[in-house]
Amino acid sequence: MGDNFKAVGYNARHDDQPVGCLNLTASALKHSRIGIIGLGLMGGSLALALRGHVAYLLGVEAEPLTRQMALRDNIVDEVAEALTPDLAPVDLLILATPVRSILRILGQLPAVRPDGCGVLDLGSTKRAISVAMAQLPPTFAAIGGHPMCGKESSGLVSATADLYRDQRMVLCRTPRTTPTLESLVLALIEFIGARPIFLDADSHDRTVAAISHLPYLVSAALMRSAGEESQWSISASGFRDTVRLSGTDSRMMIDILLTNRDEILNVLNTYQADLAHVRELLKTGEEGPLLEWLATAQVRYAAYRRFKSAGQS
Amino acid sequence: MGDNFKAVGYNARHDDQPVGCLNLTASALKHSRIGIIGLGLMGGSLALALRGHVAYLLGVEAEPLTRQMALRDNIVDEVAEALTPDLAPVDLLILATPVRSILRILGQLPAVRPDGCGVLDLGSTKRAISVAMAQLPPTFAAIGGHPMCGKESSGLVSATADLYRDQRMVLCRTPRTTPTLESLVLALIEFIGARPIFLDADSHDRTVAAISHLPYLVSAALMRSAGEESQWSISASGFRDTVRLSGTDSRMMIDILLTNRDEILNVLNTYQADLAHVRELLKTGEEGPLLEWLATAQVRYAAYRRFKSAGQS
Repeated sequence: MGDNFKAVGYNARHDDQPVGCLNLTASALKHSRIGIIGLGLMGGSLALALRGHVAYLLGVEAEPLTRQMALRDNIVDEVAEALTPDLAPVDLLILATPVRSILRILGQLPAVRPDGCGVLDLGSTKRAISVAMAQLPPTFAAIGGHPMCGKESSGLVSATADLYRDQRMVLCRTPRTTPTLESLVLALIEFIGARPIFLDADSHDRTVAAISHLPYLVSAALMRSAGEESQWSISASGFRDTVRLSGTDSRMMIDILLTNRDEILNVLNTYQADLAHVRELLKTGEEGPLLEWLATAQVRYAAYRRFKSAGQS
Repeated sequence: MGDNFKAVGYNARHDDQPVGCLNLTASALKHSRIGIIGLGLMGGSLALALRGHVAYLLGVEAEPLTRQMALRDNIVDEVAEALTPDLAPVDLLILATPVRSILRILGQLPAVRPDGCGVLDLGSTKRAISVAMAQLPPTFAAIGGHPMCGKESSGLVSATADLYRDQRMVLCRTPRTTPTLESLVLALIEFIGARPIFLDADSHDRTVAAISHLPYLVSAALMRSAGEESQWSISASGFRDTVRLSGTDSRMMIDILLTNRDEILNVLNTYQADLAHVRELLKTGEEGPLLEWLATAQVRYAAYRRFKSAGQS
């Protein structure tokens, strides 16, 4: 796996041709006009971190109450229900909706932004989005992004300006990524306090299947099957932490699961086989192998904690 | 299930006959001589909470370095390698070792404490221990206990005086439970800041299989099967929380699993079937049923959070 985490080099075609972006120059964050589509937890937190520090902030959000809140609390300069050709021009459009909604918007972009612009998405899977970005006209510059942070609560009400601080932000270059867009996005990531890491889309999707999507399914199945309400009264932090991910927004998760199906089915296979194995060991009471199974998990957890506390995260 | 959580009444045979306990009177915590067998996370934390507030504190611990540390840091008044007949008398013996070790000690008690004493255990499963307590001679008074708290780290080095504060402590009455012992144990629980809840051993073991032992197995299988080390670098709080329980001491866990096997296999069955079900939905891409599966987990998590924040915990 290690090699997959090297920076992905520019494609030879990636000469930095001017695109239709109005003001897409490196380090020009404060002069940039930025549009955020989707003012949920991720888009809303980004807006809170950027407001007052960019030239213009547009929020595009289908939900009327969220638009009201965004205006009332001065989270953005303007709001719109949908991205339409008549909207004010922006240099960088940030797509912060569920993955399949991002794919739909990417398909509509040539029609609603005929002059092109810079595009960054915050979707949780990257393969399908990278393919869609590659199909944008060359007036667009586009790069995939995935902030490795979140909460089990969602929506603008849960958004905070420091959500991204000290968190990893994966970037996936596409055939539409230009050095200028990349510089602007890196400046944005630095400004919100996140830490960029470049990954190719395949490695990203394989990795998040293991460290994010499988843990979610495992947690959701536990919340569904473990314990009646009367049993919750004596549950403690162990249960709380293990079921926490089950509270993730299901409409966001279904897009993630369906756009990363093969990788998830793959790690789920391994997981189910290992669980079936420990079940057999428990059933037959094979103490030696059972203890070894448990001890391997404990040792691996200790290695994981050392890895994280060594700051390699 | 609700009915299982009612206080369990005294058995008719539970007249409070004097037992061989030296000084086992209610509310006499500060005059009590207490022995704690096992100075790990649970026993050590209890010692830290009680030291200086009881008449005498004995620590029984097989591990030489732990005994040294307990003496050096004045965590107990005296230490011993094992409970032997020549040791100073105590009013209350607290068994804070793994479950099968508790069972062994209960079997040895009549020989090493011929005059009897009060007994409380902190074992994580209660059925087998309740049976063993019932077989003690009537010179003993005995009650089962299970503090619903812990850490993924273990040992006296991880012990803290406030580990029990605001945490639930399950109590399981046995045929050997006397009102006097129960009063002393309730005084002790109050003193360390815990909150007692009475459960019968069967309900306890069924409940912890669902809210503790299954979450542990789920977490351990995830730690074993999810992600190579190179993938840990972009893992975030979701992964961290879901694998946290996998760090639990495997020697403690194997005793728990083997003494609660039937209940665990039962909830594991339900869990595995539900995971196999969602796998099928994902594989065939049945969007409606898949979304419903995810949404049910999200709704149930929200209900769980409301339950806990309403202070019904």
